[in-house]
Parts: sequence; C-alpha cells; structure tokens
Amino acid sequence: MRPGDDLAALLPPLASDEIVVISHKVVSKAEGRLVDLAAIEATDEARALGKEDPRLAQVILDESAAIVAARDGIVICETRHGFVCANAGVDQSNVPGDDTVVVLPLDPDASARELRARLPERPGVIISDTFGRAWRVGQVEVAIGIAGVQALDDWRGRPDAEGRELAATELATADAIAAASELARAKDSREPVVVVSGLGRFVTEDDGPGAAALLRARSDDLFR
Amino acid sequence: MRPGDDLAALLPPLASDEIVVISHKVVSKAEGRLVDLAAIEATDEARALGKEDPRLAQVILDESAAIVAARDGIVICETRHGFVCANAGVDQSNVPGDDTVVVLPLDPDASARELRARLPERPGVIISDTFGRAWRVGQVEVAIGIAGVQALDDWRGRPDAEGRELAATELATADAIAAASELARAKDSREPVVVVSGLGRFVTEDDGPGAAALLRARSDDLFR
Repeated sequence: MRPGDDLAALLPPLASDEIVVISHKVVSKAEGRLVDLAAIEATDEARALGKEDPRLAQVILDESAAIVAARDGIVICETRHGFVCANAGVDQSNVPGDDTVVVLPLDPDASARELRARLPERPGVIISDTFGRAWRVGQVEVAIGIAGVQALDDWRGRPDAEGRELAATELATADAIAAASELARAKDSREPVVVVSGLGRFVTEDDGPGAAALLRARSDDLFR
Repeated sequence: MRPGDDLAALLPPLASDEIVVISHKVVSKAEGRLVDLAAIEATDEARALGKEDPRLAQVILDESAAIVAARDGIVICETRHGFVCANAGVDQSNVPGDDTVVVLPLDPDASARELRARLPERPGVIISDTFGRAWRVGQVEVAIGIAGVQALDDWRGRPDAEGRELAATELATADAIAAASELARAKDSREPVVVVSGLGRFVTEDDGPGAAALLRARSDDLFR
C-alpha cells in the first residue's frame, strides 16, 4: 500500500450485511500519513520522554493533544482525535524503510465513511488499531474509525432476564468486532483486512456517529 | 443455576480444539458465591462510596484489595484477585431476588481448571466477565479465568513482515476470544455459554498460567 493507492479497489467482494475490519496502517499509508524521521528535529520536551530515538518522540508529541502518563520510555498519549493509547498511535512496525513511521489517519471516522461510500454494497466498515489497556497485560484490536456499524449496544434501562433494569450495560460492539478480527490472522501475515459475517444486525443504513461515540469525555474520565 | 449445580454436566458436547467461554455469573452461582444483602451491615467507609444501597457498597469493599478510583457512585476497584474493574465485579443483574448479589469466583483460574478437568475432550475453558475500560465508553467481555487457552500471543522479538523486530506486540488472545463471544448472544438471552470453533491453535495441552498472566503488576502500572 502506497500513498494514493485506492483501498476500496483492493477489497474483496463484500455483502451488505458484512463488516470489513481494516488495520489502520493500510489506511494511513494510502492517505500518505507517513513521516520521514530524517526531516524531524527533536525538541527538549521530546528528548525528555526517554525514547531511544528522540525524533520518534517528537512525532509522538506532534500527534498528541496531551501526555496522559510517561515512564521509562513508555508514553501514554491522548491523540488529537481523543484516543488514549501508547505513542499516540505512531508505529514503526510493518513499515518499509528504517526512518519512516506511520501515524494515525487524520480523521479515521471520515476515512471509514469515505471508504464505505466507495463500496456499492455498503457493508459496515471498521478501521482498527492495536491498543494496550490500563491494568491488563497485552493488547487488543479496537475500533478507531467506524461507518455503518453500531459502536455501542445500549442495554441501559432495558430489563435483564429476571426483569430487573440493567444498570450500566452498554456493550462496545465495534471494539468487540475489532478484537475478534485479530483472531483471524497473524501479526506478520500481511493480511490487513478481515471480513466479518453473521453480524448484520450491527450494520446500520446510516454511517452513524463513528468511533467518536467510543471516546470517553475527559470530564467523565476517572483516569485523566 | 443454583449453588452446588454441576456446570460441566450442563455444557454441550465439546471438541478438543474448541474453546468454551462461560459467563462468570453461572460459575459464581454454582459455587455459591452469592451474598444476601439483608445480612450485610454497611460501615461508614461503605456509605462514603455514594452508592444507592450502602450494603452493596459494603460487599464491594469486602471484595476489594484497594479502591483505585471513586466518584459520583462509580467505584473502580482492585479485586482480591488483582482485577481492576467497576464494583469489584459485584453484580445484581440476572440474579433472582432483590437482595441477592453475585460476587466473582474466589479463584476463577482454579474454577476454569476444575471445569476443564471434568470435560473428557479437554477443550479450552475461559470464564468471562464484562469490564469497562479506562478512556473508552462501553464494556467488553474479558477473560477472568482460563484453563488450556493461550492468554497472550507474544510476538515480541519476532520479525514483522518487513523483517523488523516487533517491539511491544503481545496480543491478549484470551481477552479477544472473550470479547468475540459476546457477539454471539444478547445480554438478556440466558445463554451463559458460547462455544468458539476454529481457534484450536490457541488451545494448549497444559492448563497454563490462566488469567493471572493478564494481570499487570502494580509496579508496571501507570494507572494505579
């Protein structure tokens, strides 16, 4: 995948009740969201982050609205979109060239909508990235861009099987689908696209609010 | 499901390369991990948590090793097992009776191992619970007890498709499987068991370290 490549043309045939989960990296590459570290000059603030390559730290800072936590070269950022993740999503893996890094799409929800608009069957579209979690070891795939997939399945106020109102049950459907997609491939497989069948009940006619619906507002957040 | 019920006898036939994901609630019920709120007296510490029912707050405190954060009646706890989740996993939904709450199994990894030992085909066993996430809206199912399923798929030190060493890629496989299982049912469906096929590559002969492998140590944690 290179800048300007037509991602829609590279997808397999999709049905209208399917969901295509695309690793953000190919979207970023198609959109030219690559940064040449040779052109980056690190500030003192970047050097202070303790990364092996201060130029990489600088790109991370440039992609961040805030640093949420940093220690021993681990940097948890709030990106300009509002995602909280390590290194603001800046990534060197599966990128050709030693000095090139990939950054997140400028607006992953817009990327998802644009891609969906090019797919005549209008399947659901999820753009995913691999995020760590507070408190738990290991990473899972999450949805960072969504078009036409229900981000949340809201059971609040609906009764449980005993007739009692479910208090705080709002399932992050799109994140569960993203997590599931990871199980269909290996990290080194060069398979950036997973087609999910059988979940047509989560595919919506409208593009919907996108992954923005999955962002917890700072004012509601106990960990920022 | 009632205390003393035989969960293994209630499972459908399972193949050795399948993974059975079981909602912790039926495991807790079978193990008698029910608390009658009528027998609970709330301390001042419990009242201070701001829950509608201070007796429920007391049970949450009793199940917690530490309170990680609390505000406006939302209580994020570190459980005695080391899980960080809302309300220490104490739950009123899908429980009969107004005054009964379900608490987590005492040792969910042991529960998973015991269940697996009763299944002649030795499929993988995951006991799951629904956890919220820092920074993201909505909940996902995660693995809190595991026997015979690879908790983490560790790609650190292995090369990516470009031959570059993958830096921090340790996929939380068991959590992804738990998350995927949620997509196969509805919250009010009374279907506490999901059988996952096609992931035999993650089923292990040994029971393995269990979900304990997914607990981030406090010393490594930037958010405790």
